[in-house]
Parts: sequence; structure tokens; C-alpha cells
Amino acid sequence: MQTLIWNQLSPARQAEALTRPALDNEADVGSVVQEIIKAVRSRGDEALRELSQRFERAPREQLRVGEDEIEAACARLDDDIKGAIEAAIANIRTFHAAQAQAPLRIETQPGVVCELRTQPINRVGLYVPGGSAPLPSTVMMLAIPAGLAGCREVVLCTPSPASDEILFAARACGVEKVFAIGGAQAIAAMAYGTQTIPKVDKIFGPGNSYVTEAKGQVSRDWRGAAIDMPAGPSEVLVIADESANPAFVASDLLSQAEHGPDSQVVLVTTSGALAEAVKGELASQLALLSRRDIATQALAASLTILCDNLEEACAISNAYAPEHLIVQTRAPRQLLDKLENAGSIFLGAWTPESVGDYASGTNHTLPTYGYARTCSSLGLADYQRRYTVQELSADGIRGLGPIVQRIAQAEGLDAHKHAVTLRLNALAAEPQQTAQQKDLS
Amino acid sequence: MQTLIWNQLSPARQAEALTRPALDNEADVGSVVQEIIKAVRSRGDEALRELSQRFERAPREQLRVGEDEIEAACARLDDDIKGAIEAAIANIRTFHAAQAQAPLRIETQPGVVCELRTQPINRVGLYVPGGSAPLPSTVMMLAIPAGLAGCREVVLCTPSPASDEILFAARACGVEKVFAIGGAQAIAAMAYGTQTIPKVDKIFGPGNSYVTEAKGQVSRDWRGAAIDMPAGPSEVLVIADESANPAFVASDLLSQAEHGPDSQVVLVTTSGALAEAVKGELASQLALLSRRDIATQALAASLTILCDNLEEACAISNAYAPEHLIVQTRAPRQLLDKLENAGSIFLGAWTPESVGDYASGTNHTLPTYGYARTCSSLGLADYQRRYTVQELSADGIRGLGPIVQRIAQAEGLDAHKHAVTLRLNALAAEPQQTAQQKDLS
Repeated sequence: MQTLIWNQLSPARQAEALTRPALDNEADVGSVVQEIIKAVRSRGDEALRELSQRFERAPREQLRVGEDEIEAACARLDDDIKGAIEAAIANIRTFHAAQAQAPLRIETQPGVVCELRTQPINRVGLYVPGGSAPLPSTVMMLAIPAGLAGCREVVLCTPSPASDEILFAARACGVEKVFAIGGAQAIAAMAYGTQTIPKVDKIFGPGNSYVTEAKGQVSRDWRGAAIDMPAGPSEVLVIADESANPAFVASDLLSQAEHGPDSQVVLVTTSGALAEAVKGELASQLALLSRRDIATQALAASLTILCDNLEEACAISNAYAPEHLIVQTRAPRQLLDKLENAGSIFLGAWTPESVGDYASGTNHTLPTYGYARTCSSLGLADYQRRYTVQELSADGIRGLGPIVQRIAQAEGLDAHKHAVTLRLNALAAEPQQTAQQKDLS
Repeated sequence: MQTLIWNQLSPARQAEALTRPALDNEADVGSVVQEIIKAVRSRGDEALRELSQRFERAPREQLRVGEDEIEAACARLDDDIKGAIEAAIANIRTFHAAQAQAPLRIETQPGVVCELRTQPINRVGLYVPGGSAPLPSTVMMLAIPAGLAGCREVVLCTPSPASDEILFAARACGVEKVFAIGGAQAIAAMAYGTQTIPKVDKIFGPGNSYVTEAKGQVSRDWRGAAIDMPAGPSEVLVIADESANPAFVASDLLSQAEHGPDSQVVLVTTSGALAEAVKGELASQLALLSRRDIATQALAASLTILCDNLEEACAISNAYAPEHLIVQTRAPRQLLDKLENAGSIFLGAWTPESVGDYASGTNHTLPTYGYARTCSSLGLADYQRRYTVQELSADGIRGLGPIVQRIAQAEGLDAHKHAVTLRLNALAAEPQQTAQQKDLS
């Protein structure tokens, strides 16, 4: 863990310190994915089965996971993990349900009604990675808002074999269609549809570099599908003062580091003593982890920044724009209004990152790689779209019409003006009585 | 205007009829734009001045439009256009201000507080095209929500010479920095920054194929900038029954057709008589338009669909997913809950598209080209980001901790579990009193 003393750095060196490493994909990821998408688009399920044979740990003929398989998976699981998943679902559901927006209706001037309404995105696809461990939490985070939004079709793809935990979580979240297929081919199948996998409008979820590349490619094709947000390695920034518990801080840094060797881990502190103590804690806690090789690699590239005061610590965090931001200071909430550009903020000693990863209620799908400057953390709104409605009465067009005519004229758009003129003429020609009746229609 | 009788078409032919034409950019747009971006990134203002000499109608040395120039432009304008712009601004401001979201705070289980908050995107860039007519309405639609959101830096670029109307609208909407530079080079300047043009986080606004390509390229680079939404030709779909006024319907179709030769214009009606009458009206109204050549080209590719009932008309509209949807039926509001996938909906005879283009209060920046299936109409939310906050008390982690531990264990993430274990152990070790005090901190 490299240590920097912030005020000894030039502005250029400061900026460089907060710049994330370039993501250098293997050069051929793009063309491999292009080929996979082409195959799935032209040959559908047949291509999926061939790719499954090549890439899946447990390739299967039947892509859809049957009801009986899901039943069996649920029966095999211990009650305590089922109970934990259900408890997490309840919290996530509570927090996401509260995000629902009532329709907005405003009369901007007499007889001119403007509305903002939302509708669910009709068909959504959820991608849940397989890999070294099953990730039921990803199922919950992606599927709960889809259900609450009222998406009509919810499709979930995950590499084969789908773990019992994933199948249980999918059922508990109301996902009806689960397909045991992963990788770029799963993204292609959901974006374009195959004989068995329905086409969707928007795809959500994390994945490896092939999945990420496939999401990028299908989202740039208007026949493809929209995606949740741009992807990048996971990251945490911890702001800590001298009051912080170094063991807690170290455990939060390690929670991030164990995700992957490219995880970004940054500690910003006003206390040199705390920085030293955290270093010691990291060494001893690291030894206990099954994923210590991964965490060690991530820590090697990580950063401790010593700064003068908490104001400065906030500025550093805002410039970095971390996915996860943990604040372990004497009065963490006092900093909240100074903190910008973070995906999710964890306040105080009793709020480790892992509570948000699983069960507090917030979504763990967050903008990373600096995208937190512009992207939101995933929520109900990402499964909905906002659209506007307007309705003018006869009085409304009488009042607003001349304004529209004048601007249309300035823009040289005759038909725009004429559309208003025709209406104003019609109203002028007909007896007042008729126009009032029309107002009531 | 081609006429189709919907129920005489096969499902495949129906789908084909609603498929938009492919956008075939000239092949070299991508590489020309890449070169422009490279030049602006490496040589900044110097490159902008060279490109301005090549592409602008009125190339200038001084890229920023000075206060004196803006004063002079405002002084030159007639009071009636100023009044119209100010009236439109008032309505747009009213509707967008009402979109502000109060922060959400939920206790998902005892001692577990989750919050959803919003912050403005710090730096935004607005692009306002030049071309055949000045577009003050684009300034209003892009700048008003930026001001309401509280974006700290608002930069506006428009080709030189900037029209008086654009400069007046920019001042009236509170835009402080206006630069008279257009095209891909303006997008590059805002995405990466130059000596005089500040770098922004997100770029908004329409443009020609070079501008659109530049927005695509900078949005795919994490060092670049996010963008508002994908672009495509403007479009309208009108649902009309036998009660509709054919002159009104024709004027709305023409309002769309005059935008550009690639504008998409679709009439869906249950009445053959209305379809015939609209055809007659189109011919006579077309003759009056200064942009009749453009409108004629757009109409040549347009479509009338005859269907059996309004239910079916809604289904056709939902499948097409129009940017603008105009409903001129006996009881338009009754259809509202059946209508999906539209950018903005215009209800009834007194609500021509042009009111929403300029002054009703809704935003005219809308998803087109089928993106209305997943994208929202532009609003205050696009200038903000949502992020979450969580804070657990000692009691909160006592209750939630075991759930988190169990799921972390299932996912094989030891450090995630350990971060909770450490806290639970600390609480178990210390007297109840201390933990309660911490709760109050």
C-alpha cells in the first residue's frame, strides 16, 4: 500500500494519483465477442448449445432451468441461508418500493396541463455471473426492482451449473424464466432473442470482460438492448480520522480487495497513527482470508493518502468519485453534505461495506471507475422510463398559442406555427359555447 | 404517403412496416470525427480555431461570446420575441421545478437507515445546433433543467455566428459561458476541455451526424463525457378516429415532416374517410410552407395505417414506440393507460405538437428511433444523479449482522463476513452503555 502525503504533491501529481489505471482488455475480446453475437443472431439456440459446450462447466441441451430443478435446488438448501436471503430480500424490497414516484400533474398556465408519468420497461434481462462463488446477492439486487417496477418479462441468465442459492433467490424474487447459459452468448441471446430465450429491452448485471464487451456492443446497436451502466473494477474509498477503529477500517479495505486483483482500495486519513495501525491490521487479517492471494494483489496497487483535515479528505473523495465511500470519523453525518460523486456512502463504525453489499436495503449495483460523477446507483428508476403528457383546453391554446406562433416564426418553422393558427382560427370561428363544450370533453 | 390496411398484413409484414430505416451514415464520419477529437485533445484552442476557419460560417479568434456581444444581441431583438421566450421559459421552469425529488429516508429494520439522495451533475455542456434557423427553444430545453438542478458549471456551444435569439435565451436561462463553436470539435472541446472551454461531465443536445458521432465517441471513453441519450431522426405518430379534424391532423403531420427529409411521420386511424380527408389537407397545407421541399421528402416515406379499433391503434403505437404521440380521438384521455413507449403524448384537438416543442412546459428532448422503449424524456433527473447512504446503529448491526455473515459465507467472501464479525465482537465485548452512547453519535 503506497502512502502519499497529499500536500507535498503538485496538483498534477495529485490528479495522477487519483487517475484509475487504464483497462487494457486483451486485444481480441472485441472481435471474439463480435463473432459470438453474430453466431447467436444467425443460429439462435443451436449456437448457444455449441458455445455452451465450449465454455460452460456443465453444458446442457435444455437451456431453460425447469421448475423441477428449481424445486430440487430449494429443497437442498439449508434453512438458515434461505432465511438470510429472505431477510435481505425484505429489506431491499422495502427500500426500493419506497422509490416509487407518484405521477406529476401541473397546470403551467390556465388550461395547459403537463404531466410526468412513469411506466415499467417491458422486458428486462438479468445477468448473474458464475465463477468462483455463487452470487445470490446479485440476483436480489437485479430482480427485486424489476418486480417492483412491474416489468412484464423478466429473464435471468447465469452460467451452468446454476447454484442452488441463485435458483432459490430467483424464485424468491419472482423471476420466472431462468436460463443456464453465461458469457457473451447469454448477453447476445437476451439482446436479440433466440427460439427459447426472449428478446429483452434492457440488460442488467455484472460480468467478466467478455460479458462487459458484449453489453457494450449490443447497447450500441439500436436493434439490440439498452444496458444498466458502464462497468469497471470495484472500488472503495475510506475516509477515517484518528477516532476510527483500525481493525474495522482494515476489514472494509479487505472486503473490497478480495473482490478481484484489479479492485481499487483507497484510504484517506487525517491521522498518520491510524494509517500505521491499519497497515498492521491489514497484515494480520489478510492471513485469515481464503482469497488472500487476490486481496494481496489488489492491496499492492492500493493507496493511503494523508491529508490535513476532513474538508480536504472530502475534496479528495469527490475528485476520485468512488463506487463505495466509507466514512469512519467522529461525526460522519456532518460530512454528508460535503460528499459528492459517490455510488453509495456508508456512515460510521457500525456500517461496513458488506451490509450494503447484501442486506441493508440499498442496491449494490453502483457506478465505478469514476462514472459516479454522472451515473446513479441502480434503483427502481432504472427499470422504469419517464414520459410526459400534455393536454390543452380551448382556453389553454388561446393563451399559449400566440407564444408558440412567435417562437415558431423565429425558428422558421411554418408548419409548427400553422398548426396553432388553424386551431385559433377554428376557435374564433365557432360560437364560444361550442369551445366551452369542447373544454369539457 | 403509403397506406396499409393493418389486418391484411402478415405479422412479419406488420413488424417490417414499423421498422425504422437503417441510418446509413457516410462511411467516413467515424474517422473524420476521430481525427477532429484527436486534434482538439492534443492542440486545444489552436485546433478549434483552425477547424472554425474550415467549418464555421463566421469563424472567430475569440471563441467565447463576450458580455458586450450578448448585450448587443438582446438589444437588437424585438420585445415580442423576447416576451414569447420569457413566457415559454416560465412554463418550462414550472414543470421542471416540480420534478425535484425530496430525499428518501427509510429504516428498513431497526437501526438500519437507508437513504436515497440526489446531487446535481457538477459540470454540463449544452450543444445548440446552428444550421438553417436559430433554435432558441433548444437552449431553453437544455439550460432550464441545468439551472434548476444546480449544476455548477454550465457551458453552451453553438456554431458561429450565434443568433440573437440563442444569446437572449441563454442569458434568460442563466447560462454564463457561451462559446461560438459548433460541430464535432465543440463536443470534443466540452468532453476533454481546452484552454478556454471547460471540461464537462455530461453533454446534452441534438446535432448533425458529425455531432452525433462525436457524442458517441466521447461517451465511450471514460476520460470523455456522458451524454443525454442516443439520437435518431425526429418522428410523430398520430392516433385519430373519425371525430378528428383532418386539417388539425395534417398540420401536426407537417410540423414533423418539415423538420427534415428523414423525419418519420405515421398516421394510425380507424377511419378511412379521415385518412382521405387528411391526404387532401396535406396537399393544400404543404403548398404554404417555406420548407415544403423538406416536408415533401419526409411525407414520401410516411405511412398511413388503417386499423379496426382504438385498442389496436394503441398496440401499433406501442410497437412503434414514437418520439411524439398525438391522440386526436373523441375521448383521448381514456387511451392514456393503454399507451406505452412514447416520448411525449399530446392529448386532444387543442394540443398540437408545436406546443410541446416550445412552450407548454414539457421538454422537447425526447427519445426517438425506438429508444422510447427504454429511454426517458429529458427532465430534471438527467441533470442529477441518485446515490444511496446507509447508517447502522449498534443495534442495527446486531440485528442485520448475522444475515450478512450468512450470505457472505455462501458467496465465499471471508473479508465481507469478517468485517461484520469484528463489529459484533466489539459490541459483545464492551458494556451495553458504551454501545448505546455510540448509537447517539
